[in-house]
Amino acid sequence: MIAIVSGTNRENAVSMDIARQYSEILKEKGVENIILNLQDLPPDFIFSSLYGNTGKNEQFNRATDIMNTSEKFVFIIPEYNGSFPGVLKAFLDGLDRERALAHKKCALVGISAGDQGAGPALSHFTDILNYCGTHVLAYRLRIPNIGRLMTDHKITDSGYVTRMHKQADMLIGF
Amino acid sequence: MIAIVSGTNRENAVSMDIARQYSEILKEKGVENIILNLQDLPPDFIFSSLYGNTGKNEQFNRATDIMNTSEKFVFIIPEYNGSFPGVLKAFLDGLDRERALAHKKCALVGISAGDQGAGPALSHFTDILNYCGTHVLAYRLRIPNIGRLMTDHKITDSGYVTRMHKQADMLIGF
Amino acid sequence: MIAIVSGTNRENAVSMDIARQYSEILKEKGVENIILNLQDLPPDFIFSSLYGNTGKNEQFNRATDIMNTSEKFVFIIPEYNGSFPGVLKAFLDGLDRERALAHKKCALVGISAGDQGAGPALSHFTDILNYCGTHVLAYRLRIPNIGRLMTDHKITDSGYVTRMHKQADMLIGF
Amino acid sequence: MIAIVSGTNRENAVSMDIARQYSEILKEKGVENIILNLQDLPPDFIFSSLYGNTGKNEQFNRATDIMNTSEKFVFIIPEYNGSFPGVLKAFLDGLDRERALAHKKCALVGISAGDQGAGPALSHFTDILNYCGTHVLAYRLRIPNIGRLMTDHKITDSGYVTRMHKQADMLIGF
Repeated sequence: MIAIVSGTNRENAVSMDIARQYSEILKEKGVENIILNLQDLPPDFIFSSLYGNTGKNEQFNRATDIMNTSEKFVFIIPEYNGSFPGVLKAFLDGLDRERALAHKKCALVGISAGDQGAGPALSHFTDILNYCGTHVLAYRLRIPNIGRLMTDHKITDSGYVTRMHKQADMLIGF
Repeated sequence: MIAIVSGTNRENAVSMDIARQYSEILKEKGVENIILNLQDLPPDFIFSSLYGNTGKNEQFNRATDIMNTSEKFVFIIPEYNGSFPGVLKAFLDGLDRERALAHKKCALVGISAGDQGAGPALSHFTDILNYCGTHVLAYRLRIPNIGRLMTDHKITDSGYVTRMHKQADMLIGF
Repeated sequence: MIAIVSGTNRENAVSMDIARQYSEILKEKGVENIILNLQDLPPDFIFSSLYGNTGKNEQFNRATDIMNTSEKFVFIIPEYNGSFPGVLKAFLDGLDRERALAHKKCALVGISAGDQGAGPALSHFTDILNYCGTHVLAYRLRIPNIGRLMTDHKITDSGYVTRMHKQADMLIGF
Repeated sequence: MIAIVSGTNRENAVSMDIARQYSEILKEKGVENIILNLQDLPPDFIFSSLYGNTGKNEQFNRATDIMNTSEKFVFIIPEYNGSFPGVLKAFLDGLDRERALAHKKCALVGISAGDQGAGPALSHFTDILNYCGTHVLAYRLRIPNIGRLMTDHKITDSGYVTRMHKQADMLIGF
C-alpha cells in the first residue's frame, strides 16, 4: 500500500490535483494506493493532537492510521515561503515516528508557482525523513511554474508525465 | 524593537524559558524587546488565518502585529523530528512576507534534548528566512542536551551564557 | 574592498564572465573591487597548500591575501553535480578562517546550465560561510539557464541585470 | 562490491582509520569491499583530470574504476569548515555520473573533532548524491568528538560500534 500525501491544507490546492494524477498512474501500474489530504485534518490539530494529546483525537487518528499501515509514501509538496508548508511538518510532528515512518520508503514531488520547483523544500524534507528513518528515492521530481502546466486539473506536458511514470516505477522497485 | 519568538506551542516549553532568559539579557543591554509565544496563537490558526483567511483572525493578527512592528528577531527553535516545529513554519506561512520579514535581521538559537542542538533546523530556517528577505546572523547558537543544562528554568552553564551574550551583542550591532 | 570570487577553475568559465560584469557594476557604483579567479591557484594546491602545508605555497598565498584583506565578498558559484564546485570548498579549506572569513559579509550568485540556478549550492555554501563567521546577504541571486542568457560574455537580460544591481546595492549597504 | 571512500586527502587521517574498521566489519559479514583513499589521487587532479581532461589521467582513472565497478558505497566524511572536505566534492566532479553513481546505493558516516558529527556535511552530500542518482540510506551515522573515541586507530565505544554494525547491516539489505 502506497499513501500519497497532499502536503497542504489549502482549499482547491493543485497538490490534490497532482495527488489524484499520481494515484491514477499507480493504479495503472496495478499498485494499491490511497490519498491523504491534509485538508481533512482537524482544524485545531496542532493543539489538540500533538505533544500531551498524541493519539487522543479520533479525526487525527484516521490520518495517522493511513501512515501507520502504508509501507511506502509519495509526498506532494508545494513550495510555501521557500520550503514545505508548515502544516505538513506539523502533521509529521503528530505521528508516532516508529510506526508511521521508520524503515519505510518514499518518493518526493515538489511543485511551485515560481521557478524553484520546491527544490529547497525537498532538501529540507529529505533531512527530516532520514532523521525519522524513511529512505528517500534519489530521484526527486521538481515541477516549477506549475500554473502554466495544469489543464483541467492535470499535467499534460509529456516531459513531466514521463518523469512521473519514471519516478513511480522507481518507487515500486525501491 | 526586537521580537523573541518562542518557536513552539508545546505547554511549559523550554523554548519559553530560553526566550525569557534572552529577554533579560537584552534588557540588561538596554534593548527593548517582546516575547512572542506561539502557544498564544488561535488553536485553529492553520485553517482560520492562512491562505484565503489571511488577516481575518484578530487573535492571529496580534501576533503578526508584533512581527510587523519589530525590526529584528531572535528565533528560539527547538528540534522536532530533525528540524524546526511545524507550527513555527505554519506561523510564517500566515505572515505578510513584505511587512513582517523582508529587509529585517535576526539571530537563531537552536535547542535539543539530543546532541544536534537543532543544527539542521537552523540550516532549514536560514533558507526560509533568506527566501523571505531576512538577513540571518552568521553566528547561529546551538544548545544540545538542553535537559542537562536547565536549572530553575535557566541555563547557568557559563559557556552557553557567554555565547548568548556574544550573540545578543552581535545582533544589536548587525 | 570587495573580492569577487569566480568559483571554478574550469577554463573559459562563464563564472569569470559574470565576475567581470559584476566588477563593472561595482566600479560604476564607485566601489573598489578585485576578481579572484580560482583558475590561478597552483594545480596541486589541495596537496601542497592545505593541512600541514598551510601557508607554505607562495602562489596560493597570493589568493589567500586577497581574502584576508577584503571586507566583503561576492561569490559567483556555478552548479556542479547539484552543488558548488569541489575546488571552491577546497580553496576555503586552505584559508585561515579567522583572518579570511570571520566577521565579514558577502553576497552569493548562483549560475547553472539547468533550471536550478545553483540553488542547492547557495544553501550549502551559506551553511559553510555561517560556520566560518561570514554573514550572507539574504538576497541570493540564482541565474538558471545561463547558456541562453550570455551574449558576448555578458548578461543583457534586463531582469537579471536589474537584480545584479539590486544585490550589489544591498551588499554595499550590508 | 562495496567501495569505502575515505573522504579526505589529509595524511594520517582518522577517516582512513574508520574506513579500515568499517572494512573489517563488512568482511566479518562476508561482504567483499575495497577502500578508496583520496590521498592516492594525483596531487593536481583538479586541474589534470576534470572538465576537458576527464578520463585522461591514468592515476585518477584507477580511482574512478573503483567507483564504476562498485554497486554500493560507504562514504566516510570528516567535517571541514562545517561541511565535507572540498577534495571529496572535487573527486565527484571528475566522475562519470552515469557510470559511477546513478542507480547505486550508499551509506554515510560523518566524523568530527567538534560536536556536530559532520551533520551538515551529510545533509549537503545527500543532496549531491541524490542529484547524481545515488540512493542514500536513511540511517546516517554521525560520530562527534572523534578525538576522544579513538584508541589504537579504532573506535572501541560499544555504542558507536553497535551503530556501525547496524548501519552496515542496513546497507547490505538496502
